[in-house]
Amino acid sequence: MSDKDAPAGSGESSEADIISRYFAPLAQGAGEALGLIDDAALISPDSATDLVLTTDGLVAGQHFVEDSNPRDIAFKALAVNVSDLVAKGAEPYLYLLTLALPAADPVWLEQFAEGLAEAQSSFGCRLAGGDTVATSGPLTLSITAIGRLPANEMVKRSGGAAGDMLYVSGSIGDAALGLALTQDASMAAAWQLDEAQFECLVTRYRRPAPPLALAPILRRFAHAAMDISDGLIGDFDALCRASGTGGEITLEHVPLSQAAERAMLHDKSTRERIMTGGDDYQVLAAVPLAQCDAFEAASRKAEISVTRIGVLSKQGAGICARDASGAEVLFERPKFDHFR
Amino acid sequence: MSDKDAPAGSGESSEADIISRYFAPLAQGAGEALGLIDDAALISPDSATDLVLTTDGLVAGQHFVEDSNPRDIAFKALAVNVSDLVAKGAEPYLYLLTLALPAADPVWLEQFAEGLAEAQSSFGCRLAGGDTVATSGPLTLSITAIGRLPANEMVKRSGGAAGDMLYVSGSIGDAALGLALTQDASMAAAWQLDEAQFECLVTRYRRPAPPLALAPILRRFAHAAMDISDGLIGDFDALCRASGTGGEITLEHVPLSQAAERAMLHDKSTRERIMTGGDDYQVLAAVPLAQCDAFEAASRKAEISVTRIGVLSKQGAGICARDASGAEVLFERPKFDHFR
Repeated sequence: MSDKDAPAGSGESSEADIISRYFAPLAQGAGEALGLIDDAALISPDSATDLVLTTDGLVAGQHFVEDSNPRDIAFKALAVNVSDLVAKGAEPYLYLLTLALPAADPVWLEQFAEGLAEAQSSFGCRLAGGDTVATSGPLTLSITAIGRLPANEMVKRSGGAAGDMLYVSGSIGDAALGLALTQDASMAAAWQLDEAQFECLVTRYRRPAPPLALAPILRRFAHAAMDISDGLIGDFDALCRASGTGGEITLEHVPLSQAAERAMLHDKSTRERIMTGGDDYQVLAAVPLAQCDAFEAASRKAEISVTRIGVLSKQGAGICARDASGAEVLFERPKFDHFR
Repeated sequence: MSDKDAPAGSGESSEADIISRYFAPLAQGAGEALGLIDDAALISPDSATDLVLTTDGLVAGQHFVEDSNPRDIAFKALAVNVSDLVAKGAEPYLYLLTLALPAADPVWLEQFAEGLAEAQSSFGCRLAGGDTVATSGPLTLSITAIGRLPANEMVKRSGGAAGDMLYVSGSIGDAALGLALTQDASMAAAWQLDEAQFECLVTRYRRPAPPLALAPILRRFAHAAMDISDGLIGDFDALCRASGTGGEITLEHVPLSQAAERAMLHDKSTRERIMTGGDDYQVLAAVPLAQCDAFEAASRKAEISVTRIGVLSKQGAGICARDASGAEVLFERPKFDHFR
């Protein structure tokens, strides 16, 4: 290691102080974390349980607004990883966090740790390890989340078959509209949103809420599933490709919140944003026809809203989105991509 | 997600292209990676095997020189994580990578993937998942590495006891001197290094070589171990504190390479850098006296050099480094810390 200059605002905090003050409490009760003093976590698994691991990075200015509330940043960083676990049918268990900090500001760190604590408690997982480094660039986080599920029950992206019905959980597009409002609050007037609707959309962007209770239901009934993070249209395309199927969704069936309905009513151009904008952190699932009733009933019982939006077809039949009249709808930019 | 501007130099690569072209080959043969199409890895463990997880972040300009060879960056990123696994007695198994890229430059990516391939093959592990995001800041990487070992055999940092002998593997200080040479090549003349010695030190900085074969030997013989990444003196202090012991090391016993010997001969001030500079990625281990002969013999057989440098003492006896005369040596900055 080289640069021994402390980052701006680092005050007296050493890395060890940061760990013991802000992060060790988040590992309490997780024996796997070994008190965060070993630079390693220890999992003693049993053979009846599989582990699912996923990792997602977030960069200030890319995945959240630079001056976001540290609580929201922390919450979102864990939520987007938990979203991947849930879509695989796994229950959140542990996570490791790499934090590249422009400055070790105690107030920021305290709020960040509070946001993580809140997220942990929402999602039922604990901190098992991590690394804190300095950066000359924007705040950058990477979380590796570990989930558990009964052996051999993981729901893959590639398991869909022609004839399966396509479902989404929750409502689609809220976060993408919320981001637009964060960037330009005047859109709220154009979309004729009231204050509660404005808040609802912005909160959906800041605080993703993956449908935890859907995990065991997906294991029982879904052939394939993935989380919707890069936009419904692009992720629908990804599921079809992974499953080696065609597919069709009907845009009018895509569930929208009241706020999104209103925005689309007053500004037709929001449809593109809703369908392709990303950051939904809901689940897209392929369920065989014979299981649809049971899947819907189990979801209802778990108080998770699921909506049938389309169907998988044979490979070669094409992958498309249609409007109510049956006409194919093309999108300018079907999928969010960092590198395109 | 928000910023739809492609990063500079991104050309035509989408994230999916980057994954399939550069990263999917690194996951070949690892069923756990699910072909990198699921945003998740799947581990089906058995109850006789424990898993060790560790995560380390690296930032350009902090952990490696900004314009470093991408092969070296990749190699080092995996090596520093493997170093943590080895020190816990675990064998490298899988890893997940988060890559925050300022630009998606195909030449850079290809070389980076080659460096990862080389490191994987050295360390015996495979890519199981990851995330690639854009950043407006410096290149930032985070790796979560997963190791395996027989159940209940992990070597903790906290297991040391008064009377245990302290060992280090390899030689100490080479990487810190190598970094200094990278920053100012004229030091080579002051230290009277020949070309081979210069290269040796710089390579130790660029390509850490954790002593893989020591892992099973640590499991058999060590009470406690950790990797030396933040400087010998600071990490020695950390092991003593975690174990609740005092400790003493004799600086003259610390093993040095020929190149480091020469540097210290011609420039006494290099001692501080050697003992506290960090980036060694060797192992510090506490071995009970009765096991020392067997530990040394097993290490010799595995062709890993280990050197006894000190002893753990009772808590309260103090933690110190002494010179050959027995006088305590104090260091200006005993431990590398990003935030101090």
